[in-house]
Amino acid sequence: LIGGGVIGAGWAARFLLNGVDVRVYDPDESAPQRLEELLASARRAYARLTLVPLPPEGTLTYAGSVEEAVADASLVQESVPERVELKQALLARASAAASEQTLICSSTSGLRPSLLQERMQRPERMLVAHPFNPVYLIPLVELCAGSRTALEAVERAASIYRALGMHPVVLRHEVDGFLADRLLEALWREALWLVHDDIATVAEVDDVIRYGAGLRWAFMGTFLSYRLAGGEGGLRYFLEHFGPALQLPWTKLVDVPELTEEFLDKLAEQSESQVDGRSIAELERARDDCLVALLQALRAQGSGAGETLAGWERGLLSTPAASAAAQDGDIDTPLVLLEREIPADWIDYNGHVHESRYLQLFADATDALLRTVGIDAAYLEHGSYYTVETHLSHLRALFVGDRVRVTTQLLGFDDMRLHLFHQLIRDGDDQPPATAEQMLIHVDAVSGHASPARNGVRARVAAIVAAHAALPRPSRAGRAIKLQPSSDRETSYPAAPNN
Amino acid sequence: LIGGGVIGAGWAARFLLNGVDVRVYDPDESAPQRLEELLASARRAYARLTLVPLPPEGTLTYAGSVEEAVADASLVQESVPERVELKQALLARASAAASEQTLICSSTSGLRPSLLQERMQRPERMLVAHPFNPVYLIPLVELCAGSRTALEAVERAASIYRALGMHPVVLRHEVDGFLADRLLEALWREALWLVHDDIATVAEVDDVIRYGAGLRWAFMGTFLSYRLAGGEGGLRYFLEHFGPALQLPWTKLVDVPELTEEFLDKLAEQSESQVDGRSIAELERARDDCLVALLQALRAQGSGAGETLAGWERGLLSTPAASAAAQDGDIDTPLVLLEREIPADWIDYNGHVHESRYLQLFADATDALLRTVGIDAAYLEHGSYYTVETHLSHLRALFVGDRVRVTTQLLGFDDMRLHLFHQLIRDGDDQPPATAEQMLIHVDAVSGHASPARNGVRARVAAIVAAHAALPRPSRAGRAIKLQPSSDRETSYPAAPNN
Repeated sequence: LIGGGVIGAGWAARFLLNGVDVRVYDPDESAPQRLEELLASARRAYARLTLVPLPPEGTLTYAGSVEEAVADASLVQESVPERVELKQALLARASAAASEQTLICSSTSGLRPSLLQERMQRPERMLVAHPFNPVYLIPLVELCAGSRTALEAVERAASIYRALGMHPVVLRHEVDGFLADRLLEALWREALWLVHDDIATVAEVDDVIRYGAGLRWAFMGTFLSYRLAGGEGGLRYFLEHFGPALQLPWTKLVDVPELTEEFLDKLAEQSESQVDGRSIAELERARDDCLVALLQALRAQGSGAGETLAGWERGLLSTPAASAAAQDGDIDTPLVLLEREIPADWIDYNGHVHESRYLQLFADATDALLRTVGIDAAYLEHGSYYTVETHLSHLRALFVGDRVRVTTQLLGFDDMRLHLFHQLIRDGDDQPPATAEQMLIHVDAVSGHASPARNGVRARVAAIVAAHAALPRPSRAGRAIKLQPSSDRETSYPAAPNN
Repeated sequence: LIGGGVIGAGWAARFLLNGVDVRVYDPDESAPQRLEELLASARRAYARLTLVPLPPEGTLTYAGSVEEAVADASLVQESVPERVELKQALLARASAAASEQTLICSSTSGLRPSLLQERMQRPERMLVAHPFNPVYLIPLVELCAGSRTALEAVERAASIYRALGMHPVVLRHEVDGFLADRLLEALWREALWLVHDDIATVAEVDDVIRYGAGLRWAFMGTFLSYRLAGGEGGLRYFLEHFGPALQLPWTKLVDVPELTEEFLDKLAEQSESQVDGRSIAELERARDDCLVALLQALRAQGSGAGETLAGWERGLLSTPAASAAAQDGDIDTPLVLLEREIPADWIDYNGHVHESRYLQLFADATDALLRTVGIDAAYLEHGSYYTVETHLSHLRALFVGDRVRVTTQLLGFDDMRLHLFHQLIRDGDDQPPATAEQMLIHVDAVSGHASPARNGVRARVAAIVAAHAALPRPSRAGRAIKLQPSSDRETSYPAAPNN
């Protein structure tokens, strides 16, 4: 990485959390601190984004020069300020020091790659790869070839970015500003005029976006939104009816307001009033939480950026590293298969963690157990274990931000079944907030009927059950629900609220 | 309602589902069919949007004239095509026929209210209330007063729209296009140029929005996004660094491409290729599902449009109608407290309905039971029942789109506890896909300790337990988990998948 500012650090986080080693050159002394902070934010976001195990994090090192940074790199990503001279000079040095096959990509928001290629050696492996802030969460990357770029370089770059969970859009033609920034700037100029002319404040402008069309833009963009408004008549009908309004003097698009001191003061003042004392760190956390929630919501709909997330997860699950990593670890004590911070979106409309979320934690631990005993993407083609019974006990309430882990004890098995007991652990509690006993049965993926597990999986299950036989049996195992006499009542505070 | 097109019908749906009676005037013969179809879509969306019980639906009637439509109405909403003469004429007739206090709002996207007031009687109660498609889901409504509008009218309108779950933004000044359409049109013009000049297709333009900045726009808008990019230096720092790029020739904003036949052909062709054979109904369903998922995701984050949804739900819960409606119904058979279609976002990354969702169905039924026995917003100040144990059995798999209901049998109670048995019912199945036995305990809201339920609630519980004592006891009640000998095994197909 050449440049470790907001964009460079965002790239570092995306690469590192995808298991890629990163070497950064940034002469700014504060760069390492900024990078570490942003990496911490990204780790937090990814822990919420997916339950799929991530590969071991890549190694982050710092280089004293461009040449040191690019030596032996497979990909060079340049993210320095938008000054042509500066970019040209650094890209020229990178191209001279990198190996011949090294891809060199610039994060520029709008400068043409042909211009940036001018002083480079082997410019055919150079292209623009323009990301969006925060780089570790927003999937879009615009790829733009210069006049001297080889098609092979664009294809190689697209496949790398796709493997990092991104969605590359390859431009058909080289244009200033590419696609996204032309659209963003059109909106932004109009927004600046609205504030400049005192028609609205910055907060009001943002509100008409986020309570309105912004919701549609998150998954449809602009053409599909209008296509729907056109009904059966389609976009042609829409334009025949609403096209004339485009000629009305509703926009003020001819130029851009001059950024006088007075106008800058107004913007800065309104912007600070909008953030209302929240720190950048708070705002960034809230932004990341919303992005994670939106990406997950869209994943569930199989739509756009959510499909990108799902594809990335499928890719992570199918790597040999994912199953190998899952099979390590000590089996003489209850297994610790899941650690998690209770996320804010587990709260129902009464402010309680919904009881189904307790089961979600245990089910995810069961999921991790299955990976541990060898049920990987290949095995799933043949079969897997399904839960047939669960007995949940709620002993303490969970709260947002609680850091919990699930420990899992195997109580028994036979050729088809698996009997286990989970405990939720929160440090400092004298008893688990909740427990779950589960019975699973192995099902053949083709017939859909109960079937014996394969030998490798059964051997692994048998080894853990044998090791766990030495552990004390949990007191709540085998429990049935009944209305006991009052003297025998649970005295503990019950945990999972209803209403 | 004057006008029952896409916008008018969207208004009808929002009003009706909020319990408001609606009378529509639209001379188009196909209006009733369109209204019914859109109402069906809105019902489906609201069933997914919230678990809070909605008020009884308002009554929809059709009027033969403007005068008949507005007679006795509290609010008139005009949503006819954007032709000044047409709107002026209909608004004039409405103002002559309506009572003096009736608010009259126009849904115009950009025409100044002062212009629309010209021929009206009592123009002080007229303003613009500009909504966004689909009106029943997008919360934004722009309120714009004309030169003769009374402040009181704007305030009254804002409070009505807020009660319907909307987020009113009141304009400071009367301007053509208001706020939202100026921003939308700026983006839209630039998008049209990109397609006109063959720089991108309509699908590519939409992709750079929905995989990129559109995700941020859904909850932050544009200024807050850039405020964050400015880091500690704020918007001033951002503009000092990125402002100069606004002068670069990245946008082509001076005019709008001429809508020639050739250009319209290109747009229509690309648009049809983007929708790839999906029908308008399919596209609308997918759009509504995504909007519902986004609104729910943002509600969990307490952000923007999600906060609007949460506020609407709080309002619905606090109405006397909500608790009264919940206490009706026959108690001689197991209670049917929940009916639901399995939504698409209940699928995990393996394509199965996650086992925690089965518990979510049962927990929601328990929630409905508590409302039935009198635990309303007022009671919650004192206490409620909390789940302490759940025994889940999975007997059949659920699939997306399955229509299911939960029946609930009360097995017992004492002063603090409530013992119940839920069965999930899917028509055509010989046994329930899943069952859940639960023990709940009553907890004091202030002390946080177990406490007796209040008399009214206990009496209601006692009545149901007494009535249900005559029903056969469910065979799976009181069951404990154990690894039985093979002869005694479950033979059924197990339902809740892991991995």
